[in-house]
Amino acid sequence: MAALAVLRSSAPARLLSGSFSVHRGGLASWQHYQSRRPFSNNKILVELNESTGVAVMKMKSPPVNSLSLDFLTEFSISLEKLEIDRGCRGLILTSAFPKIFSAGLDITEMCGKSAEHYAAFWKAVQEMWLKLYGSNMVTIAAVNGSSPAGGCLMAMCCDYRIMADNPKFAIGLNETQLGIVAPFWFKDTMINIVGNRVTEQSLQLGQMYSAPEAHKIGLVDLLVPEDKVQSTAAAVMTQWLSIPDHARQLTKSMMRKPTIDRLVKQQEADINNFVSFITRDSIQKSLQVYLDRLKQKK
Amino acid sequence: MAALAVLRSSAPARLLSGSFSVHRGGLASWQHYQSRRPFSNNKILVELNESTGVAVMKMKSPPVNSLSLDFLTEFSISLEKLEIDRGCRGLILTSAFPKIFSAGLDITEMCGKSAEHYAAFWKAVQEMWLKLYGSNMVTIAAVNGSSPAGGCLMAMCCDYRIMADNPKFAIGLNETQLGIVAPFWFKDTMINIVGNRVTEQSLQLGQMYSAPEAHKIGLVDLLVPEDKVQSTAAAVMTQWLSIPDHARQLTKSMMRKPTIDRLVKQQEADINNFVSFITRDSIQKSLQVYLDRLKQKK
Amino acid sequence: MAALAVLRSSAPARLLSGSFSVHRGGLASWQHYQSRRPFSNNKILVELNESTGVAVMKMKSPPVNSLSLDFLTEFSISLEKLEIDRGCRGLILTSAFPKIFSAGLDITEMCGKSAEHYAAFWKAVQEMWLKLYGSNMVTIAAVNGSSPAGGCLMAMCCDYRIMADNPKFAIGLNETQLGIVAPFWFKDTMINIVGNRVTEQSLQLGQMYSAPEAHKIGLVDLLVPEDKVQSTAAAVMTQWLSIPDHARQLTKSMMRKPTIDRLVKQQEADINNFVSFITRDSIQKSLQVYLDRLKQKK
Repeated sequence: MAALAVLRSSAPARLLSGSFSVHRGGLASWQHYQSRRPFSNNKILVELNESTGVAVMKMKSPPVNSLSLDFLTEFSISLEKLEIDRGCRGLILTSAFPKIFSAGLDITEMCGKSAEHYAAFWKAVQEMWLKLYGSNMVTIAAVNGSSPAGGCLMAMCCDYRIMADNPKFAIGLNETQLGIVAPFWFKDTMINIVGNRVTEQSLQLGQMYSAPEAHKIGLVDLLVPEDKVQSTAAAVMTQWLSIPDHARQLTKSMMRKPTIDRLVKQQEADINNFVSFITRDSIQKSLQVYLDRLKQKK
Repeated sequence: MAALAVLRSSAPARLLSGSFSVHRGGLASWQHYQSRRPFSNNKILVELNESTGVAVMKMKSPPVNSLSLDFLTEFSISLEKLEIDRGCRGLILTSAFPKIFSAGLDITEMCGKSAEHYAAFWKAVQEMWLKLYGSNMVTIAAVNGSSPAGGCLMAMCCDYRIMADNPKFAIGLNETQLGIVAPFWFKDTMINIVGNRVTEQSLQLGQMYSAPEAHKIGLVDLLVPEDKVQSTAAAVMTQWLSIPDHARQLTKSMMRKPTIDRLVKQQEADINNFVSFITRDSIQKSLQVYLDRLKQKK
Repeated sequence: MAALAVLRSSAPARLLSGSFSVHRGGLASWQHYQSRRPFSNNKILVELNESTGVAVMKMKSPPVNSLSLDFLTEFSISLEKLEIDRGCRGLILTSAFPKIFSAGLDITEMCGKSAEHYAAFWKAVQEMWLKLYGSNMVTIAAVNGSSPAGGCLMAMCCDYRIMADNPKFAIGLNETQLGIVAPFWFKDTMINIVGNRVTEQSLQLGQMYSAPEAHKIGLVDLLVPEDKVQSTAAAVMTQWLSIPDHARQLTKSMMRKPTIDRLVKQQEADINNFVSFITRDSIQKSLQVYLDRLKQKK
């Protein structure tokens, strides 16, 4: 046991990531003059710390990080860039805005548009999920505000969830409350975290959980004061990165591949299913009323 | 979030159930002179409150609501009636007797009868499960007494379980204690609620849980004083009915269909399996001794 | 309920095990002069108590019960002997050494050997798992010390786990910390006990849990003082043996067969997969460094 304890904190991480360090050195050579390599697009800010190998991805699409088609496209591109960067081993996903992590799927993308648009939008949602849930990096969600529906899904895709300990912040898959239905892969992702029973009740009722409630049911792993969310995410990341990448990645893939394969095998059918559901008159009317109410609020 | 909160308690429920209200009006037209429409048979009393759309089904087969072939047949017919009634959106299942919810499958139906009888009986058990577990209605079990074996199964089929907070009342799948075995779909139903580990130990030992224990492991969702079971069930029902039927039903189906399909695909084989097991000499002798003991008790 | 309670503690156990008692008498006839029938080989001591039908299997391969090829072979032979012995209904698995239950797979068997050797070793690990996880006996792990990796697997294969309440003792599947990966059937076994989420995090991080932590997440069922581990195991065994063997065995098989079948169907592929992984240069180097460190410790 003593020998194991020594090994845990040192040898294998260095040893097994050794085969990667050559490439990392190669890729990093022209970049070593800076310790942080930021890149940004309209909706997302990415900062990669070269010395730690940890990227922080800050969603910054005002006012509430709604997952529009544009947002999702930029998100997937940003993620893909980090995924193929051998210098990046971990990703912290968070929001640039206090109080809101992400409000979830942008309802305006699902209302009053063409079937082609709906199909393109849904494919973008699928791609976001496939890339984030299947990422080889260590992924940690620093949930610094509320996170309904698609926002909750993003957090659930990560390896670990830290949330600001504020009972005003809520998280959950609340689709049924809008008269729509979370698809099976949202459901599978949630079952993999909180189990079948909590998921069944949660999805039927479209339940939103306050941060303390979410922690209690295991939907988030850790609650910390609001101003400690980012630093705690960095500290937890260090712990995860002490594990040899190779063994951790194989293990993660073994855990998640069956769930991912389920969508991959029926990706087209899932798109068709979404389009045929969302184009129904009753659903369109329901979403339009919802949007009108949102506008009146402003 | 604020907009969501508004919507939650009003709009979508009205909007999405709108398409149903025509039919409901049509069906209800000749019935609107009364707010409660009771129907009853020998073993079950059903009261449908037209204004709330909630039916209360009271099992009243003395002395302990044993699930005989007759009982199960009446139960499935009653359930089917409510299922096709557009005026009924929710079902509360409870017992007319204090102290006992249901004693489970009637042992006399499994002892000293013909193979044909056993097959008919088992098919009736299957049908009860298929209809209740697959119901489109919101189903709430108001467990106002003990609920072993098949009684526990009925409760587990519901969307939500409220139990009288009395440590003398017990619930569980105790089949192995009688030398018989819960079939795979009993097992699946339990796993879907309490997970694999609790189910494995529980089924092997034939464990009965007191109300507080059952609540602790998640087998029941809520404990309330005995005299509050029915009113709490009604209050919880209101909460569930605030969700648009359409979205809730699709979600429920997504959660339960795989489990239901497993039995549907091998319904005949499951009957044959039961008949071949229950007709064994050793099992018949074991059940006969059990019945003789029950008679001596009287 | 009262009748059930009577039955629980007496009738069915006698009734349903009746068909076995003839055989038991037959086999036991030449053995009845002794109440304990010990047999032993180099690495394992087995004591069968004829009157209770309970065997205690003490692992005694110094210094830490590493699961070498020899150990695993002897373990499977001992288990097989008990399995076919009608006089044996329950097995308590424990260690002859204080502080260590089993250190898990013997690293020296995975390092610097031939592909043929790795294949034979892995097949022996598979056989141990298939026999122990699929045992018809009641199996209880009396975990009287630390139990990493393969040692944890052995404990997880049992029906019930009792651990010494000592925070210095740890248990868990820590493979990733050595740069290796737990195979899918290790993973399945753990998911069946603690669920998907705990397993995912646990396997990725190679987490070891102190006895209290292991109890909290359900990885062990009961904590007792170190000197009560064996007596508690015997007491719990009595409870499990009060259930008719026949019904309990069918139930256990129903719960575990799908998991067992997954490996059976791809046993050869799993061996090939292990051999191709373990023969990689990077893995061999990593394990060699680990072994060198272990030697320096001495």
